[in-house]
Amino acid sequence: MVLSRVRPSFEERERLSSIARKVLSRIEDLAWSGGVECETILVGSAARGTWLSGDHDLDVFIGVPEGSSLVPALEIARLVAPKFEERYAEHAYVHALFEGFELDLVPCYLVEDASRIISAVDRTPFHNRYVSRRIMGLEDEVLLLKQFMKGIGVYGSELKVGGFSGYLAELLVIRYGSFLGVLEKAALWRPGEVIDLEDHTSLSHEDPLVVVDPVDPGRNVAAALTLDRMFQFVAASRLFLKEPDLEFFFPSPISPLSDQELQEHIAKRKSTLILLEFAAPDQVEDVVFPQLRKAEQSVRALLDRNGFSVLRSDADWHRFVLAEMGEGEMGGSGKSGSYGAIRMLFELEVASLPRVERRVGPPVWEAEHAKMFISSHPDTFSGPYVEDGRLVVEVARKFVEAKELLCARMESLSLGRHLGPELRRGYKIYGGLEILKIGDPEFRVFMARYFSARERIS
Amino acid sequence: MVLSRVRPSFEERERLSSIARKVLSRIEDLAWSGGVECETILVGSAARGTWLSGDHDLDVFIGVPEGSSLVPALEIARLVAPKFEERYAEHAYVHALFEGFELDLVPCYLVEDASRIISAVDRTPFHNRYVSRRIMGLEDEVLLLKQFMKGIGVYGSELKVGGFSGYLAELLVIRYGSFLGVLEKAALWRPGEVIDLEDHTSLSHEDPLVVVDPVDPGRNVAAALTLDRMFQFVAASRLFLKEPDLEFFFPSPISPLSDQELQEHIAKRKSTLILLEFAAPDQVEDVVFPQLRKAEQSVRALLDRNGFSVLRSDADWHRFVLAEMGEGEMGGSGKSGSYGAIRMLFELEVASLPRVERRVGPPVWEAEHAKMFISSHPDTFSGPYVEDGRLVVEVARKFVEAKELLCARMESLSLGRHLGPELRRGYKIYGGLEILKIGDPEFRVFMARYFSARERIS
Repeated sequence: MVLSRVRPSFEERERLSSIARKVLSRIEDLAWSGGVECETILVGSAARGTWLSGDHDLDVFIGVPEGSSLVPALEIARLVAPKFEERYAEHAYVHALFEGFELDLVPCYLVEDASRIISAVDRTPFHNRYVSRRIMGLEDEVLLLKQFMKGIGVYGSELKVGGFSGYLAELLVIRYGSFLGVLEKAALWRPGEVIDLEDHTSLSHEDPLVVVDPVDPGRNVAAALTLDRMFQFVAASRLFLKEPDLEFFFPSPISPLSDQELQEHIAKRKSTLILLEFAAPDQVEDVVFPQLRKAEQSVRALLDRNGFSVLRSDADWHRFVLAEMGEGEMGGSGKSGSYGAIRMLFELEVASLPRVERRVGPPVWEAEHAKMFISSHPDTFSGPYVEDGRLVVEVARKFVEAKELLCARMESLSLGRHLGPELRRGYKIYGGLEILKIGDPEFRVFMARYFSARERIS
Repeated sequence: MVLSRVRPSFEERERLSSIARKVLSRIEDLAWSGGVECETILVGSAARGTWLSGDHDLDVFIGVPEGSSLVPALEIARLVAPKFEERYAEHAYVHALFEGFELDLVPCYLVEDASRIISAVDRTPFHNRYVSRRIMGLEDEVLLLKQFMKGIGVYGSELKVGGFSGYLAELLVIRYGSFLGVLEKAALWRPGEVIDLEDHTSLSHEDPLVVVDPVDPGRNVAAALTLDRMFQFVAASRLFLKEPDLEFFFPSPISPLSDQELQEHIAKRKSTLILLEFAAPDQVEDVVFPQLRKAEQSVRALLDRNGFSVLRSDADWHRFVLAEMGEGEMGGSGKSGSYGAIRMLFELEVASLPRVERRVGPPVWEAEHAKMFISSHPDTFSGPYVEDGRLVVEVARKFVEAKELLCARMESLSLGRHLGPELRRGYKIYGGLEILKIGDPEFRVFMARYFSARERIS
């Protein structure tokens, strides 16, 4: 039932094969005519028959001998398809659109051993070889596992997700023999779990899950997996084994909240929501998301430090915001907002505080510090008095509303190399019901997810 | 200038001497006619010429030989004055009124060595002998020190104060030679300070100040002194040495706050005050105050634990409450309120909270606990979700107002042996401006002190 939806049809396989062949022979022709010595390798799920139906990704590596230059390979890549852009990981590569497929053309070095790679991408052909030789007959199990991970939101090793990569899913199936075998083992995982397919004695890792790379024992295949994604998978595995359900694989889509629904949630929770919005920078997700998480934590810490206790927060990048965004209010620069909006949501347990504030000073017996503390608080509401041996004063608090604090301090926070400048170019703060003004569906889906926050757990 | 106010006049000395003589000879007569073998000893500040002018206390000890009974001595004590009551410390003693003096008549054993005492009071004659022999010529210094301690609120070893006893003040003057000598040394004190007049090698104590009892090296004379009273004295000493002022000895009396002043303080601080009031039990201060401090801490902990962050609290026993107290509202029993009111004040930083509340559960990998946690939270606003590897749910908070919480949970708190039953007999909670209804001057002085909370500190 699941397989019929995720297994590529005969036609889909044929189409992918024919396109892959076309790309490979085009590269070989170009290499021949340019006199470039190279080897063309189809890698990834397309090469191993483990892609989910509907995915249209092709990863083609152009390998050159160790010691030679990657430049000719990159030049070939540029000529494969008319519509392309250059992207950068450790090295430049080409991302192209080719007959409806997203094509990554990646120059790499052909090394003898995966432990002697020059760039991280050089490892990929080894992964491809390792999996291809062992996955035969297990492709369906991989498809089930990938779709399960996708359905519960833990699939993808990109920094936005911090979940399981396709290669990791394949290794788990190779190790445990089946989709259900993986789930049964995962249900018992604890932090620090080590999986070592080739019984390499591996280096020790601090990561929550360590899967020793069979082709490079010093590397943890699960290095990008966060503790929370790992245990979302563990919890979902337990629940699925007890109560299997199609919903794990194909969760109902989340509808954007209507104004009324949004209002109802706010009224029910009676907490105070504060939303911070500014234009997204012209950067890829893997650059933006780590900064976004860090920025979210900085703002949280600022609020908590000032007594505005944060119940929960979330942040996201919304690309398809309404037309009104990016104009006037957002800063003015024509470019601002063209990449969508960065949004950070903070739900407060305490949004306003009394004017009086306690300040705890040094112990009385530190005479010099005590003197400085007293003289730096000439006007007190109460005190100085002695409590637990320390000086305490009660003075006028500067910010009694969380929103005031944010408006005053936001720009001085360290928010990351690309987010900081965008924020200083202009930002908006919405408090409480003001967030109703934000109508774009991406935001309303984000809010629906935020309020539910329900994961498949048992 | 200070001395002229605190040194007893010639007439006062004469009067005290003549009354003391009268009491002593009356006891001796009674002993002689009853055939009781005993020794009558005038002890305390009256015996040593170190009482503050206006004090009318006489402490007379009736010592009987080790091995005999205290009962005949107690019977003599009962016959000294017509107006008396029996009180209990470790043993029974008599508190009497005699020609305008408060007279304590304390039976004790005459032991050979202060380290071999049977009851704590047996030590007093040894203290008396030790101080009497060394204080001659230093009486004025003792008077200054006692009045200074009184003025800054650290005089008295009773549990309500937790300050310096008269004996302790005398020992400090003996050790450092003068009032100013004591202050100069005290200005440098740190917690754990040890003062050992006779260079006994003493047992170690955990107390903030250790003054080895010269007549009983195992005992700390400053055992009742709290860290905060000690460092109030330290801070005041430093300030006095820099800027001496009569106000240290004779602070201006604090006026009760008017309705308007009370309102102004509340409006300025913008915090929420909650006052708890119930009838005081028929017990002495040394019984009530430790329970009161413990009860105050229990209520504070209850509030803090439930998210109602307490800025500061205070508690007191008001004897002279208005007529309306103790009737109807206070419980109904005729006796209730006849000993005045116990009042506990809590100033809240957070007095109301959102309906939604976070509950953090066990780590996902503790499968059994996780299962129980999930099944005990069937209705959630949000979650369960995984955060830092733990399960988290957001549910409806039970108490969103601090006052609601107190009303529901007050009676189940452990408030002490005597306070608990009184509270369960009836109590009142005043929130915010409702405390304006309480008009008695003792309460209004308490509030004035609370709002100022200013100690002499530098």
